Amino acid sequence: MNMTQTLEPETKAETPEHLISRLAKDARAAQRVLAGMADGDKADALRAAAAALREDKDAILAANAKDIAAGKERDLPAAMLDRLKLDEERLEGIASAVENVAALPDPVGDVIDRSEMPNGLKMSRVRVPIGVIGIIYESRPNVTADAAALCVRAGNAALLRGGSEAVHSNRAIDAAMSRGLLSKGVPEGAIQLIPTQDRAAVGALLKAAGEVDMIVPRGGKSLVARVQEEARVPVLAHLDGINHTYVHAAATPDMAEAVAVNAKMRRTGVCGALETLLLDANYPKSGALLAKILDSGCALRGDSRARSLDSRIDAADDEDWDTEYLDAILAVKIVDGLDEALAHISAHSSGHTDAIITSDDDTAERFLNEVDSAIVMANASSQFADGGEFGLGAEIGIATGRLHARGPVALEGLTTYKWQVRGTGQTRP
Amino acid sequence: MNMTQTLEPETKAETPEHLISRLAKDARAAQRVLAGMADGDKADALRAAAAALREDKDAILAANAKDIAAGKERDLPAAMLDRLKLDEERLEGIASAVENVAALPDPVGDVIDRSEMPNGLKMSRVRVPIGVIGIIYESRPNVTADAAALCVRAGNAALLRGGSEAVHSNRAIDAAMSRGLLSKGVPEGAIQLIPTQDRAAVGALLKAAGEVDMIVPRGGKSLVARVQEEARVPVLAHLDGINHTYVHAAATPDMAEAVAVNAKMRRTGVCGALETLLLDANYPKSGALLAKILDSGCALRGDSRARSLDSRIDAADDEDWDTEYLDAILAVKIVDGLDEALAHISAHSSGHTDAIITSDDDTAERFLNEVDSAIVMANASSQFADGGEFGLGAEIGIATGRLHARGPVALEGLTTYKWQVRGTGQTRP
Repeated sequence: MNMTQTLEPETKAETPEHLISRLAKDARAAQRVLAGMADGDKADALRAAAAALREDKDAILAANAKDIAAGKERDLPAAMLDRLKLDEERLEGIASAVENVAALPDPVGDVIDRSEMPNGLKMSRVRVPIGVIGIIYESRPNVTADAAALCVRAGNAALLRGGSEAVHSNRAIDAAMSRGLLSKGVPEGAIQLIPTQDRAAVGALLKAAGEVDMIVPRGGKSLVARVQEEARVPVLAHLDGINHTYVHAAATPDMAEAVAVNAKMRRTGVCGALETLLLDANYPKSGALLAKILDSGCALRGDSRARSLDSRIDAADDEDWDTEYLDAILAVKIVDGLDEALAHISAHSSGHTDAIITSDDDTAERFLNEVDSAIVMANASSQFADGGEFGLGAEIGIATGRLHARGPVALEGLTTYKWQVRGTGQTRP
Repeated sequence: MNMTQTLEPETKAETPEHLISRLAKDARAAQRVLAGMADGDKADALRAAAAALREDKDAILAANAKDIAAGKERDLPAAMLDRLKLDEERLEGIASAVENVAALPDPVGDVIDRSEMPNGLKMSRVRVPIGVIGIIYESRPNVTADAAALCVRAGNAALLRGGSEAVHSNRAIDAAMSRGLLSKGVPEGAIQLIPTQDRAAVGALLKAAGEVDMIVPRGGKSLVARVQEEARVPVLAHLDGINHTYVHAAATPDMAEAVAVNAKMRRTGVCGALETLLLDANYPKSGALLAKILDSGCALRGDSRARSLDSRIDAADDEDWDTEYLDAILAVKIVDGLDEALAHISAHSSGHTDAIITSDDDTAERFLNEVDSAIVMANASSQFADGGEFGLGAEIGIATGRLHARGPVALEGLTTYKWQVRGTGQTRP
């Protein structure tokens, strides 16, 4: 390399791969500092970040106003503009969410188990941060603060890539948080916004195996699908929430009606929403249950037996059993008993959240044991699929993969472990 | 599809992708049966598999003789022929290893944690099998039995792809084990040998994301590198064991000498073998330590300061710090204190097993906390890096990735968890 090249500004001729590699190296260095920080110091740093968000209120809201204006010019849909929009109340919500994360117990350093071998070696498994985590998200600027706070709380560095429509808001939030963290000794590399909207940078991030330890996509299905397809770095995510609730013959009708309507209609756009209702042929109040759901404003698509119960039910086709509507539409199928329900779920569930409603404990236990989804529920609404509702304080997302972490993923899922071995000079025979 | 096509034998026009998909579906179906089997029944089935291996002794040894004869004809190296070779004693070792796995505690069904929320929902995280695990290995036929037994013990199905040089031995072992398992109700799909030596089948296995849940490569570096490069399915493995031992200024000389020689020379070809010795400039007996290592038959490659201590030390170049010799060769570097040792390890360790020798507890604890490898040791030989030595009973391998499982991976690493939620009709407000 000659001198002219080295004197050029780094960003000028920088490839996306080089950019990501440079950011990841800064992240790794910062992460090593974070990994050595005491619990209380990390919590203090997050509280300082929350304070900086409040201090920068005017700057953040001004930046957000730019994004909103640009979004209106680009004719973004109203729902997207609403997700993008910040106001004093929402910003205060973001700052206090960071404080809530600061208040969560730090899993790093927890001893998972320990043992002593006959030769005197003492083994312990100790929780450590994962390392460098890439977060790829869409229009909500609060993710910048939420995801960064969760990563830092568990000792990880975060590389953040938000949506282009939120670029000014994200930069203002990142600047405030970084300043707050830095004031308590957390290096700037600990949270970094990828400084380009070039899509090739996302591709480079997804392929940075060894430099980036995990990717968490937060957004719609097309984003998650692209990430899962392209990534060489392990991905923690769910693609679909094709969730079932099976109303068993011994379900209590009041409970079945309340839970089914809530599971579908409380919020139809969340990943824990009910998408297929399996109704036992021996459940005595099927007509009333379906009427309740229809009356709540939900369209039903059913098999022929379901359709015979209410004339308002449309015909389902094969695709309906594999569709995540995220809307006020529900597929409904009549099944002959638990085994058929289990077989349908095994064939069609996306492994997110499946539930049974029954007053029979043995049936409930069989369902809880045999359904192989990240979350299995008895007698509760699948809308509870959320880290906060599980007592985890917050979540980085819900995972339907089978390795590392499943279901709602919070701080523990942002750690791994190492083995510490303490000896007195043992050699292996 | 017309009738002529459906009547053709499946294997004739079958693509590698179709073959793997078909085997994986059988595996999934078998795995669901296994997942529902009680602990004792799975253990009984493995004991029956061990008995079948003993019953089939003559057939297995005859099959192995074919492989050995073919290997000699192909001029396989003596070391490979030795790994391939079975005799009565080795076969008995294989059968009793299966019995040992049967005797290990079953992690499936263990409750990791549970909690009750203020609304009365009861959450528990319960260990469940991972599902379908692909094992790719080389010439050792014992892996067929070992890996299958570990997978089945934890409720998983195994798709096995052994080396072409062991094909007859592997088939005979698989046939015996499958028969034994089947006699106790484990479907044949639970362990399946991929019935072709076509390399394209390995490619298809590595890409069968969604059908295969995890890949474990067991073999040399080129196998592991290919698997890590090509796989879309998560891989549990280590590529290198570039392991360091740092002899601190306060190391006890007798211990330092015994541990260093053992860590390097007990078996030089194992992944836990020492590859780089970091010697503190203030350690008072450096010359004696290096002489002990040289006298044990090990060549040394050192930096200039190390070379000044003994004329028998060759010059190390930059590559030596990143080399896994797997031989009687050791890189040695003089470092000025713990911080330089930590920085060298951070830059060059493969994250497998790194150790410190010191009589100073604070220094040992700093090393144990700050080195970010799967296994960190104080005052012990890195050759202890082995699931058996960690009290895990057996291991499927050692992992240096950061997610799911690190270090020696045994039955627990072959499980994941799901969340069970028990309610009384709760709906989400």
